[in-house]
Amino acid sequence: MTTIDEQLDVLMSGAAYGDPQTKENMRAELRERLIEAEKEGRPLRVYAGYDPRKPDLHLGHTITMRKLRQFQDFGHEVIFLVGTFTSLIGDPSDKGEARDQLTMDEVEENAQTYAAQAFKILDPEKTTIRRNHEWLSGLTFADVIHMASNFTVQQFLTRENFSKRFDVGAPIYLHEFFYALMQAYDAVALETDVQVGGQDQLFNILVAGRKLQSAMGQKPQVAIIMGESLPGTDGSEKMSKSAGNHIPLMGEPWDMFGKVMSIPDDAMPIYHKLILGWQAEQLAELEKGLSDGSLHPNEAKMRLAREITMIFHGEDGAEAAQQRWDEVFRSKGDGIPDDIPESQLTEEKKVLDILRDLNMVSSGKEFKQLVQNGGIRVNSEKIDDAQMTLTPGDLPAVVQVGKRKFVRLV
Amino acid sequence: MTTIDEQLDVLMSGAAYGDPQTKENMRAELRERLIEAEKEGRPLRVYAGYDPRKPDLHLGHTITMRKLRQFQDFGHEVIFLVGTFTSLIGDPSDKGEARDQLTMDEVEENAQTYAAQAFKILDPEKTTIRRNHEWLSGLTFADVIHMASNFTVQQFLTRENFSKRFDVGAPIYLHEFFYALMQAYDAVALETDVQVGGQDQLFNILVAGRKLQSAMGQKPQVAIIMGESLPGTDGSEKMSKSAGNHIPLMGEPWDMFGKVMSIPDDAMPIYHKLILGWQAEQLAELEKGLSDGSLHPNEAKMRLAREITMIFHGEDGAEAAQQRWDEVFRSKGDGIPDDIPESQLTEEKKVLDILRDLNMVSSGKEFKQLVQNGGIRVNSEKIDDAQMTLTPGDLPAVVQVGKRKFVRLV
Repeated sequence: MTTIDEQLDVLMSGAAYGDPQTKENMRAELRERLIEAEKEGRPLRVYAGYDPRKPDLHLGHTITMRKLRQFQDFGHEVIFLVGTFTSLIGDPSDKGEARDQLTMDEVEENAQTYAAQAFKILDPEKTTIRRNHEWLSGLTFADVIHMASNFTVQQFLTRENFSKRFDVGAPIYLHEFFYALMQAYDAVALETDVQVGGQDQLFNILVAGRKLQSAMGQKPQVAIIMGESLPGTDGSEKMSKSAGNHIPLMGEPWDMFGKVMSIPDDAMPIYHKLILGWQAEQLAELEKGLSDGSLHPNEAKMRLAREITMIFHGEDGAEAAQQRWDEVFRSKGDGIPDDIPESQLTEEKKVLDILRDLNMVSSGKEFKQLVQNGGIRVNSEKIDDAQMTLTPGDLPAVVQVGKRKFVRLV
Repeated sequence: MTTIDEQLDVLMSGAAYGDPQTKENMRAELRERLIEAEKEGRPLRVYAGYDPRKPDLHLGHTITMRKLRQFQDFGHEVIFLVGTFTSLIGDPSDKGEARDQLTMDEVEENAQTYAAQAFKILDPEKTTIRRNHEWLSGLTFADVIHMASNFTVQQFLTRENFSKRFDVGAPIYLHEFFYALMQAYDAVALETDVQVGGQDQLFNILVAGRKLQSAMGQKPQVAIIMGESLPGTDGSEKMSKSAGNHIPLMGEPWDMFGKVMSIPDDAMPIYHKLILGWQAEQLAELEKGLSDGSLHPNEAKMRLAREITMIFHGEDGAEAAQQRWDEVFRSKGDGIPDDIPESQLTEEKKVLDILRDLNMVSSGKEFKQLVQNGGIRVNSEKIDDAQMTLTPGDLPAVVQVGKRKFVRLV
């Protein structure tokens, strides 16, 4: 059986709070809580919340899930909290955007999609899914005022996200303060022992949540704040859908494999660490192999892509994705895989229009740039004329966009 | 019949907003609103709100009531809004103070007491009393968030009350921001044309109320912000119960009369202006009389005290108060009025304890200071020994505290 100190080492790994003293305190509190729970013969209640307004999770979200999984593996109770309340009320700053407010059915559908993605990492048997509109929608103005009385405006303005805007005079809408209160109340409603979140949740979890729990007579939760965030496919910016550098969990295996293959070599160690959970020793070996040339970066990345794809798409999905990759980039022939989609061409048509009709490029501008960069090939030859046309007489022909998009015209 | 411009002159008199342009704007808006209401054959809906947590109003509160009365006299509809919601939720900053939260019955009793005081100035026939818990207690967290999304934190921090505290680093509790939102929502719920308030309401009425009304599709109310506030009996600080310089409306006629007599001579003009509603011409005459010696300050003050007392206690109350004043301060004899309360003394007792048991002094410290300042007399003689006792053998005796408190010991 795992000792409490062994649990502690695993559970605190990767947590960071901006200062070492807070980490010490959190470790001490978690230790005490583990001892207490063991005495009482109960598991800890651990949760993390996820915003269901954009239902497609990406690899960056899995860092907190992996932490939740560690708690599960030690027998603790995990609550996967879907932040349905915000979806139901919408973002009131978007005045014109009625669609920002979801119906109960849409919210429930998103919650299900969400959970399906999360269960690639979490153990469904040991996970409870909760939705925070259950308790937040019943609160009255008076309840909100009582909650708010535990906080000063100044405390909120210390939050990095707000203080930066305040310093440059950018507007902070009053209701934005409420998101921290909501999250704080989630902790109260769930009577949690531990909350897990990313660095952007530091204030909500460590300050707001703990303070409100204390004010309401509960023992304040232990905050596990993940220190590192996953860079996107560009290797530098934090992965996010809005930055366009994300790797979605629910895409095709081939897409996930290819996107992992596209990360810069120097991002490999952090992907191994945060997504595969590699420990310091393994990471050191990886870095050593890469630097002394005993490990080829491409080989390492291929193994990484395969392992990550396997988590979300299983052995078969990963195998198929890798085979396709091999076909495209390692074949001695024309580099064109066999199983590409076909399309009919019945009259003379510009290559631009063919690709646009197939949604393989989104605009004439994008197409032109691709041509300039040598990104469009017809039968493996780069084209340099953006006005080029194809006629039925040229068929069959294979048009390739970038490295991985193909169509066979017949 | 009064013309709209005549109404405007009266209704805008005494209003001030910190800058002349806003006053011009408000005057123009009020003019437009008066014309519009006349066309539609309806009165304007005008309101002011009063906090019922401390049910004793004082003279300072009557300035806004006098303004409401002016609207009534022109035929407009006045709503006397009792801020019951805050009483029902209590002030959440006072953690330990359960008593700060009132029951529905207490709130209703305060509201009645409040109205009784207000009706010394307002016409009860033309006044509707409303209580804001009716609409505020039904709001949900989602409603509050939508309301709050119309405001930025920075807008709230421009409010004088907050900006000063912010500048010196004094805490501003988050729920304090809500008081402006509540008041803003009152205006929405009442669909008001005009709201009247003091300078401390400038932000709540002119910024928050108008903005929320606009956001909710209503025409923003005209703000009538009274420029001057009444100084207390010290003649310098704004009248307030907490400063201890207030003249309560519901005390004895004698107490009101005496307290007005205690104001410094140079506070007389503003009392005439704000409480009796004297116009510039009359005020100039008063000041002239006082400065050229043709009017004795004491005589002027006596007339002021009598007129103010008459408003709240009628002709008879004012008459009785004045007679008593004359007896005490003008009698050639011992200066002790006839109709003072009696109390029995059956054993030797310190003067301090006698007065403390009768609630005529509140502490030994206060008593000592009074003795030092010659404020305690026994049978018209100042005493200088704070330990002095009286025995049944000394009776009957009259003990006097300050100028106006007496007890006859028998």
